Amino acid sequence: MDIEDLAARVKAGERRALARAITLVESNRADHRADATRLIDALSGAGREALRIGLSGTPGVGKSTFIEAFGMFLIDQGFKVAVLAVDPSSARSGGSILGDKTRMERLSREQNAFIRPSPSQTQLGGVARRTREAVALCEAAGFDVVLIETVGVGQSETMVAGMADLFLLLIAPAGGDELQGVKRGIMEMADLILVNKADGALLQTAMRTCADYAGALRLLRKRPQDPEGYPSAMTVSAITQDGLVEAWEAMTELADWRRTEGIWSATRAAQARAWFEEDLRQALLARLERDPKIRALVDDLGDQVAAGVTSPTAAAERVLAALDT
Amino acid sequence: MDIEDLAARVKAGERRALARAITLVESNRADHRADATRLIDALSGAGREALRIGLSGTPGVGKSTFIEAFGMFLIDQGFKVAVLAVDPSSARSGGSILGDKTRMERLSREQNAFIRPSPSQTQLGGVARRTREAVALCEAAGFDVVLIETVGVGQSETMVAGMADLFLLLIAPAGGDELQGVKRGIMEMADLILVNKADGALLQTAMRTCADYAGALRLLRKRPQDPEGYPSAMTVSAITQDGLVEAWEAMTELADWRRTEGIWSATRAAQARAWFEEDLRQALLARLERDPKIRALVDDLGDQVAAGVTSPTAAAERVLAALDT
Repeated sequence: MDIEDLAARVKAGERRALARAITLVESNRADHRADATRLIDALSGAGREALRIGLSGTPGVGKSTFIEAFGMFLIDQGFKVAVLAVDPSSARSGGSILGDKTRMERLSREQNAFIRPSPSQTQLGGVARRTREAVALCEAAGFDVVLIETVGVGQSETMVAGMADLFLLLIAPAGGDELQGVKRGIMEMADLILVNKADGALLQTAMRTCADYAGALRLLRKRPQDPEGYPSAMTVSAITQDGLVEAWEAMTELADWRRTEGIWSATRAAQARAWFEEDLRQALLARLERDPKIRALVDDLGDQVAAGVTSPTAAAERVLAALDT
Repeated sequence: MDIEDLAARVKAGERRALARAITLVESNRADHRADATRLIDALSGAGREALRIGLSGTPGVGKSTFIEAFGMFLIDQGFKVAVLAVDPSSARSGGSILGDKTRMERLSREQNAFIRPSPSQTQLGGVARRTREAVALCEAAGFDVVLIETVGVGQSETMVAGMADLFLLLIAPAGGDELQGVKRGIMEMADLILVNKADGALLQTAMRTCADYAGALRLLRKRPQDPEGYPSAMTVSAITQDGLVEAWEAMTELADWRRTEGIWSATRAAQARAWFEEDLRQALLARLERDPKIRALVDDLGDQVAAGVTSPTAAAERVLAALDT
């Protein structure tokens, strides 16, 4: 594969090249991994920086309609928008459960939008690396905003927050008791809570829900990455588009403040370092799987340990010794 | 250290030797680790098998008073009882938070009881290995029942269930709404739910709570390791000792059934295999910490990645190459 050519096409913003590049970084094949590393390295000097926005919300809160409306709003402002989905459950169903492009019909037809469904991977660690490499590719391709969407199940939020500049939590209007349904850990990650469906018959409920979350946010301890007034809760409507302007203003205000304060670059640096260390751990552990002789030894020693013939620690030492020869 | 001598003393049931052996397996020093492995290997042929009982419950349910009462009950039946505590939070407070021996005053004075507080470790993985090695030592020392106690916070339950033959969940009497406070995952691990404090003014509430949990257990899907009627919920009182006989009968019935069905040995074999694989992963990852040159390289490359000079994947490959030379 001509990696230099692919890198040049990605940098030129060619959508098909970007799609092909993402397919490459999603592959598990050893030769593809080597190509992917070369590609990422070739693009790392591109010097382009998107606003990376993580977005979470449980099924039913209207994530797709929000992304469609918000994405169209950004495109109307002249921005290029990429949407990447991270769905840890998709590994079981063999791909994205919802068919992302049909979920966002208008956005998917836009020249300045790029939508990519969740990669099918059994391991969250694998999804993490592939997603952040896809983010880097979108960034190098000149997208101004990269939306990384996930579902509200905990671990995937932490992962997405670990590669985003801003983290949004999308909430549906509901009675006050529903507040407890959102895990505290996810609340603590949010920079902005958006109560969606603030329109029609649900408007009043949405406003009450928003006030509830605003109250809950005030109870959380102050984070160093927040200016006065953040994290905050706001209402939006994907249908009437009410609140989209205000939400975008809040995001840019927060992003600008963090840039000025040096928090933005410090966060990105810390994120990159954490990725490197996680990559390193994963690559080291992959050695146990790669060599068929090692795999056979692990299986054999596992049988001995299960039978009580060898202790777990002694067996582990024998595998380590075999790895060194 | 004379490991053969220590092994012989542990096998002879000497309490001070057992305490010293556990201190040895809790140590992080490389020479101690090597000695600990030799000790565990020397004792692995002892052929003794205790009933390993995992016990979980949030603070306030009366775990200590229950263990004291249940432990004394077992000792009165002629059994030798060891109590090991696993408290993931103790790493922060620098040791067991409650001072286990003073919590169980009568039990701690018994010749046939052995109580060991939680080791101070920052990593749950480290606590896991040390705890299961301590369980193996208590077993080799001839204890009939090993109680492994933990607090209800999720991860530590999974760990304790992974080294126990039976898993008990201790619950305090409370209104029906409180049921939701117990995580579904922990409910699903429980073989027996014991509603404690079923005495005095709380007796009626305890019986209602017990009925609530019995109902909740019936809604869970059937597990292959359960005979008819299990998992079940029962009331107990650490103060009046009501229900202790019935709870012990349920435990022995369940254990006997699993032994007869071959589930007991299959579970132990699977647990041992899982420990080995986890030990192996931990030992492999420890290589990143052991050699100062590797540590320095990881730090240096981490700086380069943070500065955007090197990609995470390329940096990881350089560390792997350095590990091989």
